[in-house]
Amino acid sequence: MSHYSKLENRLNYTFENKQLIIEALTHKSYKKPYNNERLEFLGDAVLDLIVGEYLFTKFEKSDEGILSKIRASLVNERGFTMIARAINLGEYIYISAAEENNNGRDKPSLLSNAFEAVIGAIYLEAGLEKARQISIALIEECHPKIDLDSLSKDFKTALQELTQATHGITPTYELLDSSGPDHKKEFVIAVTLDGKTIAKAKGRSKKDAQQKAAQIALKELKK
Amino acid sequence: MSHYSKLENRLNYTFENKQLIIEALTHKSYKKPYNNERLEFLGDAVLDLIVGEYLFTKFEKSDEGILSKIRASLVNERGFTMIARAINLGEYIYISAAEENNNGRDKPSLLSNAFEAVIGAIYLEAGLEKARQISIALIEECHPKIDLDSLSKDFKTALQELTQATHGITPTYELLDSSGPDHKKEFVIAVTLDGKTIAKAKGRSKKDAQQKAAQIALKELKK
Repeated sequence: MSHYSKLENRLNYTFENKQLIIEALTHKSYKKPYNNERLEFLGDAVLDLIVGEYLFTKFEKSDEGILSKIRASLVNERGFTMIARAINLGEYIYISAAEENNNGRDKPSLLSNAFEAVIGAIYLEAGLEKARQISIALIEECHPKIDLDSLSKDFKTALQELTQATHGITPTYELLDSSGPDHKKEFVIAVTLDGKTIAKAKGRSKKDAQQKAAQIALKELKK
Repeated sequence: MSHYSKLENRLNYTFENKQLIIEALTHKSYKKPYNNERLEFLGDAVLDLIVGEYLFTKFEKSDEGILSKIRASLVNERGFTMIARAINLGEYIYISAAEENNNGRDKPSLLSNAFEAVIGAIYLEAGLEKARQISIALIEECHPKIDLDSLSKDFKTALQELTQATHGITPTYELLDSSGPDHKKEFVIAVTLDGKTIAKAKGRSKKDAQQKAAQIALKELKK
C-alpha cells in the first residue's frame, strides 16, 4: 500500500496517474524537479468556481455582493487549512527536513496550498464534476452551517483579519464584568488593540459579548 | 428574429433558455426584477478557471507566479472590454435611458461585466466545455499572441495600472530627443508622473523607448 492510500480512501478518490497525487503533495522545499505550486494555481480557480456555483445555486435570491462575501469566508487559507486538517493532509505531504523541523506539516499556508493542489489534481484527471463532489462534501463537513447568518455573524474573525491587515496585530478580548443570577448572567467584554480599548459590549455569554464587541469595533475601525 | 440573434450567431451559441441570455444582457440600471450581476459573479469564476487551465496547459514549464501574471493580464476589465467590443456586445445590452445618455453602451465596466455574465450563462446552460470553447476562441481572436514575452513586455500598461492604483493618475510620455540617420534613429523618452520625471530611456522607436522607460519606472515605483 502506498504512503497516500489512506488519503485516497478519505477523499473517496483513487488516482490513476500516481504522479499527479505525488506532485500535489510535494512542497517546494522537497527539492524535486516538480512541486505542487502549479496544481495549487489550478486548484485555487477550480475551488473558486465550485464554491461560487454552489452558493449561486443555494442562495437564489442573494445578490453577487453577498455571494462574494460568503465565498471569501469559505475560500481562504483558514477554511482550507481546516479541511486539510480534517483529512490529515499534513501526514502525507513531502517536505524537506528543515521544513519538517520548522513544524511545516502543521503550517496553515502549506496545508491550504496542498489541499488546493489535491483538488487541482483531481480536476485534471477526473474533471469538474468529480472535483465538485469531493470538495463540496469536505466543505459541508467542515462548515455544517453555510448560511448567511452564521457566516456573516463571525465578527471576531472579520475583526482579526482587518486588524492584521491594517495594524499587523491581533485584537484581544478582556472580561470587564459579569453580573446577575446564574440563569440570567450578563458579561461585559472589551476589545483592545495594542493596549487601547476600541469597543465594549454586553452579552448573555462571553462569546456573545465578544462577537458584539467585535462588531462594534469593526464599525469603528471602518470609519 | 430576436434582438440578440446576431449576438448568438457571433458567439456560435444559441440559448435554449432565452431568459438566461436576457438576464446576462440586463444591466442593473434597467430596473427589472433580475439583472446580470449574479451571472457575472459566476462567469468571472468560470473565466478564471478556463484561462488558468489554458495557460497551465500551454506553458507547461512556467511556474505559478508567471501563470498568475499572464492570467491577470488577460482576465481583467480591459481584456474583457476588448472582447465585448469585438462581438459588439454594447448593441445588445439592456440599460436605462439615463445610462444610455451617459454613454453606457461603451463603458468598459459595463461591457466587461456583461461579457462575464454571458459566459456565466453559457456555462450554466451548456457546461464548462462549451463555455471554454467559446471563450478561448474569443480570447485568442483578441490576443493573437499569448506568450510570455509579448504579455510581460507590456510595461506601459502595467505602469498605468500601478500609478492609477497608487496615485490615481496616468503617467505621460515625453519625447526628449531623437537623433541619428533615418535607418538608425534613436529616441529618448521620459516618463513623468504628476509633472515629475521618474524614468528616461533610449530606444530604436518611440514605442520601444516608451516601453523601456515604463519598465524602469515600474522598478523605481516598486522600490
